[in-house]
Amino acid sequence: MIKAWAAAEAGGELQPYEYDPGPLGAHDVEIEVEYCGICHSDLSMLNNEWGMTSYPFVPGHEVAGRISAVGEHVNKFSVGDRVGLGWHSAYCNDCHSCMEGDHNLCADVHHTIVGRHGGFAEKVRAQAAAVVKLPDNLPAETAGPLFCGGITVFNPIVQFDVKPTARVAVIGIGGLGHLAVKFLSKWGCEVTAFTSSEAKRTEALALGAHKTIDSTDKNAIRAAKNSFDLIISTVNVALDWGSYISTLRPKGRLHFVGALLEPVKVNVLALMDQQRSISSSPVGSPAVIAQMLDFAARHDIQPEVEMFDLSDVNKAIERLENGSPRYRVVLKVK
Amino acid sequence: MIKAWAAAEAGGELQPYEYDPGPLGAHDVEIEVEYCGICHSDLSMLNNEWGMTSYPFVPGHEVAGRISAVGEHVNKFSVGDRVGLGWHSAYCNDCHSCMEGDHNLCADVHHTIVGRHGGFAEKVRAQAAAVVKLPDNLPAETAGPLFCGGITVFNPIVQFDVKPTARVAVIGIGGLGHLAVKFLSKWGCEVTAFTSSEAKRTEALALGAHKTIDSTDKNAIRAAKNSFDLIISTVNVALDWGSYISTLRPKGRLHFVGALLEPVKVNVLALMDQQRSISSSPVGSPAVIAQMLDFAARHDIQPEVEMFDLSDVNKAIERLENGSPRYRVVLKVK
Repeated sequence: MIKAWAAAEAGGELQPYEYDPGPLGAHDVEIEVEYCGICHSDLSMLNNEWGMTSYPFVPGHEVAGRISAVGEHVNKFSVGDRVGLGWHSAYCNDCHSCMEGDHNLCADVHHTIVGRHGGFAEKVRAQAAAVVKLPDNLPAETAGPLFCGGITVFNPIVQFDVKPTARVAVIGIGGLGHLAVKFLSKWGCEVTAFTSSEAKRTEALALGAHKTIDSTDKNAIRAAKNSFDLIISTVNVALDWGSYISTLRPKGRLHFVGALLEPVKVNVLALMDQQRSISSSPVGSPAVIAQMLDFAARHDIQPEVEMFDLSDVNKAIERLENGSPRYRVVLKVK
Repeated sequence: MIKAWAAAEAGGELQPYEYDPGPLGAHDVEIEVEYCGICHSDLSMLNNEWGMTSYPFVPGHEVAGRISAVGEHVNKFSVGDRVGLGWHSAYCNDCHSCMEGDHNLCADVHHTIVGRHGGFAEKVRAQAAAVVKLPDNLPAETAGPLFCGGITVFNPIVQFDVKPTARVAVIGIGGLGHLAVKFLSKWGCEVTAFTSSEAKRTEALALGAHKTIDSTDKNAIRAAKNSFDLIISTVNVALDWGSYISTLRPKGRLHFVGALLEPVKVNVLALMDQQRSISSSPVGSPAVIAQMLDFAARHDIQPEVEMFDLSDVNKAIERLENGSPRYRVVLKVK
């Protein structure tokens, strides 16, 4: 039996819950959870906003811990290995995307908390392919959020081959955005933070941003015309995207990693003149996660976190939902 | 004096017209026009649809001819050289885009028929940098349309580093689309033509397409889910872009070269899961035009054209405006 915390219904409080995970799959591993981040998608799933939650529901997909058991066909891990697990828990490992190393684009991907129990628990299981080793000098305390929030913003840097000479803007300095600023500044880029909060503008500079722009100041955005090779938008609210597009340099890209529900209206002529693009991407593949962890360890990049004990999980959820945590919330499980 | 054909007012018939071009600029060349294509943007300019036409207006920006005079600082051309001229007539040659070879993205670019007189004339002038030599074995008769229609569809193949293994779809088999099909099939790609016309589906196969899809058949589009690495849309009417996006493979791109005026509504989540992009681009730089001409000459790629004498220019315009020419209309000037 695995001891976990689960909600019995949409939006319900989490309660202690035990379940029998059955025999360990031949290609799976079991992780003893030490820390688990809380991500906005845990809340969306908890509240069944995407209509795909099954209850009892155990959230948690930003896991850092140690391998506690390995399936019979697993060679890459041994019991005791320090590892992490993110949004994806298994891949088909067969399709064209998987064969190209883009497991994150696998058409038959499985999600750690969709139809399965997640990491708000003493243990969690996943296919070994979806689990990535932690570098020795990367602390487990803050590693969890890298596996979802971190890889979501790191992945486009790799996918679009962003050069250290690039000028990059980040919209929204929160859980995702603060990590984007950290990664990009260590990547060598010129980093500009768009944020509406005076406090966060100061914090963004401390995180490594070179410039900040008040995102509520239309004139300031207009003045930034032709400034950025890449904009990473981490927000999930509609902004005046046309004015952000005009801040792109020739061949610039407006890239969405925030799960924006409202359609973006794009004026093709605004893209055409300067060969601009609009795009979006999900979390990264295990190979890119490994690159990210290595880069994070080398440059001492860690998310800023607020730590709660697992027994205070409902307080932690409340903090993420209604507070303005700086910047990710992590549960201490063990 | 240069003998030309000009409209005196928006939408007016073209009439014989003479103008004094003044002394030849030190960095400019004069081209004796032999052939000049007619492009839809000639019509848009003629009708002042973009509010930037000055009258008398001499259209024509798909010029093939011979150098008849060179400015004092021009070294790259000699009188008699076979050349072509397209949508851009001069660059600043100083800005970052120009210095990177992306003259087509120059912020201070000049247009052959904006505030200047174009190629429906015995002679036309341009900055030498904007003029490109024709390969010896590329016939002048059909070279003109390559300089605007051709480069518009060839440019994205270069810009996005399209591989010969790619599966590419072309929306709209007209002046631009038929050239896209020709280029892409010689490039080695699998080419699919989306068109609403039964006749054009047959023609598309003859042009080099491997498959065709009836763009009015929603079920056929739905069945093409996950098929294309790149879609080049050459149309300027609004389609159900969401269904086209769903035909993109992982990392696929929907690219607009048609001057679509109605905004495209993009669902970010439809891009996110499979890391898809939306983009647009203008004509290409002189360097890419030269690559295109070389490729066209080697593979005997020519636009299909209907030829009119310059004296029949008004009939030719009528044919482009209201007929369905196969596929570009070209004026024989000399």
